[in-house]
Amino acid sequence: MAMRILDAIRNHDSRDGRLFDYTIISLILISIVTLSIETVPGLTKQTMLILRLTEVFITIVFTIEYLLRVAASEKKSRYIFSFYGIVDFIAILPFYLALGFDLRGLRAFRLFRLVRLLKLNRYSHAMDKFGKAVILVKEEVVLFLGATAILLFLSATGIYYFENTAQPENFQSIPHSLWWAVSTLSTVGYGDVYPITIAGKIFTFAILMIGLGIVAVPAGLVASALSEVRRNEKAEAGKDIKNKDTGAV
Amino acid sequence: MAMRILDAIRNHDSRDGRLFDYTIISLILISIVTLSIETVPGLTKQTMLILRLTEVFITIVFTIEYLLRVAASEKKSRYIFSFYGIVDFIAILPFYLALGFDLRGLRAFRLFRLVRLLKLNRYSHAMDKFGKAVILVKEEVVLFLGATAILLFLSATGIYYFENTAQPENFQSIPHSLWWAVSTLSTVGYGDVYPITIAGKIFTFAILMIGLGIVAVPAGLVASALSEVRRNEKAEAGKDIKNKDTGAV
Amino acid sequence: MAMRILDAIRNHDSRDGRLFDYTIISLILISIVTLSIETVPGLTKQTMLILRLTEVFITIVFTIEYLLRVAASEKKSRYIFSFYGIVDFIAILPFYLALGFDLRGLRAFRLFRLVRLLKLNRYSHAMDKFGKAVILVKEEVVLFLGATAILLFLSATGIYYFENTAQPENFQSIPHSLWWAVSTLSTVGYGDVYPITIAGKIFTFAILMIGLGIVAVPAGLVASALSEVRRNEKAEAGKDIKNKDTGAV
Amino acid sequence: MAMRILDAIRNHDSRDGRLFDYTIISLILISIVTLSIETVPGLTKQTMLILRLTEVFITIVFTIEYLLRVAASEKKSRYIFSFYGIVDFIAILPFYLALGFDLRGLRAFRLFRLVRLLKLNRYSHAMDKFGKAVILVKEEVVLFLGATAILLFLSATGIYYFENTAQPENFQSIPHSLWWAVSTLSTVGYGDVYPITIAGKIFTFAILMIGLGIVAVPAGLVASALSEVRRNEKAEAGKDIKNKDTGAV
Repeated sequence: MAMRILDAIRNHDSRDGRLFDYTIISLILISIVTLSIETVPGLTKQTMLILRLTEVFITIVFTIEYLLRVAASEKKSRYIFSFYGIVDFIAILPFYLALGFDLRGLRAFRLFRLVRLLKLNRYSHAMDKFGKAVILVKEEVVLFLGATAILLFLSATGIYYFENTAQPENFQSIPHSLWWAVSTLSTVGYGDVYPITIAGKIFTFAILMIGLGIVAVPAGLVASALSEVRRNEKAEAGKDIKNKDTGAV
Repeated sequence: MAMRILDAIRNHDSRDGRLFDYTIISLILISIVTLSIETVPGLTKQTMLILRLTEVFITIVFTIEYLLRVAASEKKSRYIFSFYGIVDFIAILPFYLALGFDLRGLRAFRLFRLVRLLKLNRYSHAMDKFGKAVILVKEEVVLFLGATAILLFLSATGIYYFENTAQPENFQSIPHSLWWAVSTLSTVGYGDVYPITIAGKIFTFAILMIGLGIVAVPAGLVASALSEVRRNEKAEAGKDIKNKDTGAV
Repeated sequence: MAMRILDAIRNHDSRDGRLFDYTIISLILISIVTLSIETVPGLTKQTMLILRLTEVFITIVFTIEYLLRVAASEKKSRYIFSFYGIVDFIAILPFYLALGFDLRGLRAFRLFRLVRLLKLNRYSHAMDKFGKAVILVKEEVVLFLGATAILLFLSATGIYYFENTAQPENFQSIPHSLWWAVSTLSTVGYGDVYPITIAGKIFTFAILMIGLGIVAVPAGLVASALSEVRRNEKAEAGKDIKNKDTGAV
Repeated sequence: MAMRILDAIRNHDSRDGRLFDYTIISLILISIVTLSIETVPGLTKQTMLILRLTEVFITIVFTIEYLLRVAASEKKSRYIFSFYGIVDFIAILPFYLALGFDLRGLRAFRLFRLVRLLKLNRYSHAMDKFGKAVILVKEEVVLFLGATAILLFLSATGIYYFENTAQPENFQSIPHSLWWAVSTLSTVGYGDVYPITIAGKIFTFAILMIGLGIVAVPAGLVASALSEVRRNEKAEAGKDIKNKDTGAV
């Protein structure tokens, strides 16, 4: 029995292993939803009790999982100080700390529960593909993020000089104007700050003409790199099959 | 005559078949437009009569179509319980149900008329290409939709902690803050909720830097996969022609 | 002299031809800017006189151009009833009609001056490449435009049922709700209409998840097709050079 | 010692050269941030002193850098009148000019400090790749920018005729309506101007259907060209390695 559990933890491809993995993923997601609902004001006492019990149950399961993982790893210290070891530990820590502390401090600790999302990472095979794609276009993406940063700054400086006199409230300094630059170049356009002078509007037009291209390119690059990674993997899979075929000769 | 009608239903490529198909498509679209206009307040009695008569006429045609399709299919039960069989049935059902019921219930039933749009699916050959493209990038699109969901949740949690004190109305809980996250990351930016604290604005900037990429990538992936499907189909068509050419030797 | 002018009109690649073309393009653009400035309220009498004189001058040049083109074409009637022949004629017609009519009717006629923009089409060689790319992805773009239309309609229907009771002003009927659907799915989000009920907000989220992909794909398709056309043209140019090289053997 | 400094300036790949480069880049960025913070109203005297001292320090370093670069270049006049020579000079000039002038004029001079950003260009190797990609799709991008300009103008003209009567404030002339066209076609949608008539709304829908494609295509073109440049460079690098391998025979 003990062997079977340890095996389920070690081996992701066995039937038990998959069952174990999906259980943990489900509990992570339920735990996050619980954290979210807890913030709704005016919950009934019953709802709060259910949420609290769910949280206690999940934390106990995660504690058992943590202890099992320590037991299952051959070199204990290696797992404990690995990335996932630390994440698994921080995911249960706030609960036990909160027991000893005043309840007022609980609120900030709850935020640490978000660390549990990082646990999801372990299970995502598709993330590898994404990682490869990012490495492929790393240099270009960094260039465009740099260009975006400089563009945001230039936009903020420009609009500050054009709109400062007309709207001293919204554009009181360059750092304040950055908010306008972010909301405009992302094309979100909340409508809380916008130019009202002719010069400011022409400047906005010029910035958008340049900016839309710069902001939208990285997404296109990642998409195109992902397609390339997919094609390469397919080509290699095809080669493997071919090698196997001819290998039998 | 009866044979010719049954043939028109079975064979989409014959002249009669195409005429039949286009008639049904037109009636589906007219039926949807009718449903839409019916909701306009202050219609004259005459307009309402015309809309009602159109609806009666279209439902009768669809009923005849349904009966013909049952007659045309070799195994009756197989068509009746197929996807399109059920869609065709639900598309006429509400009308007959409404005859028996009180008119007040009519309103909710009318919504079912939208099911008729699903009938359109049958006629779209281009949908196949799109289907193939989606299968090609299924894994990546699911990954990005998952990432979008997690990002939305993280954004809502973050903005809740930053803006809750300053705007308790708009950001009263994490589920409430999700509305802000949706409207911001989709870059719609209605302007009904937006951060006003410095921390909230910097957080918005960070979320947008990451989020714009994640949200825009799936569309790029589908576009690039569609191009690939198109090229593959062209290459295969080319091969077929070549084979025919050399086949004559 | 007469021969040289006729030659300049017929031959776009000669030095005179290019000079003639650029003159006409400049006059078209000036004419459009003039139309635009004329609408600014509170112009001085002097400005209005200059605008009027510019308009008279440009129309005279276009009239001469039209007569020359008629003279330069071998089959007169063929040019006159060709696409560009009609465009060239309509581009000067409103001016002469306005002379005979009451000045009040002038305003509507001025709009016809926009037809002059169509004259630009004649000079754009890059348009060919774009045309080829559109043909390449025509089927997919039409599919996505159709999907967009259906999605807009479904969104409007859905939001109407969710928001009608809460905001009878903004969502009074499905056709009225279409405005919300257009402004949301294009991600413009003016902020004049937005859902306020929980159900409406969740519906908006679902529609955006599906809609952003559908709306953004056609642009990606056109971009990818344009790249393909460019590569094909380059490959063919390469082949031509190769053929020339080996042709000398 | 003197030789070592001159060497650090000339040779970007040596250890000293890289250290020197990174120092200059950091100072440029600090200088820009300083300019930005200076505009915040209500700074304490101490903060302003620190900002002022930082500015003095950076300008002195840049002056020394300029003099060293003059010394390090073999043909003095060639560096001084080169692009970077002029940029380096303008980056320090305003400071010295401001010393001689009245302090009131200082504000406008400070803007020139932005020229320092151009100094960054020197260090960006990734910019080359971007430059190549832009050249590859230059013609198409110009075509789409032209189409965008014409579309903006047509949209402004259209909305002016539809909305002028209903909202004479916001759409008082075609040039004023251009602001609406910019904010709509970029999908920013601040919400300060939007159509309220039925005709205006239908027109907006039509313009967006066409416009979203046209505005989004250039970014896709640049992304796809960048991928092509990357692939070509990789292919050439592969060829070089192959040549080296076979070159030893």
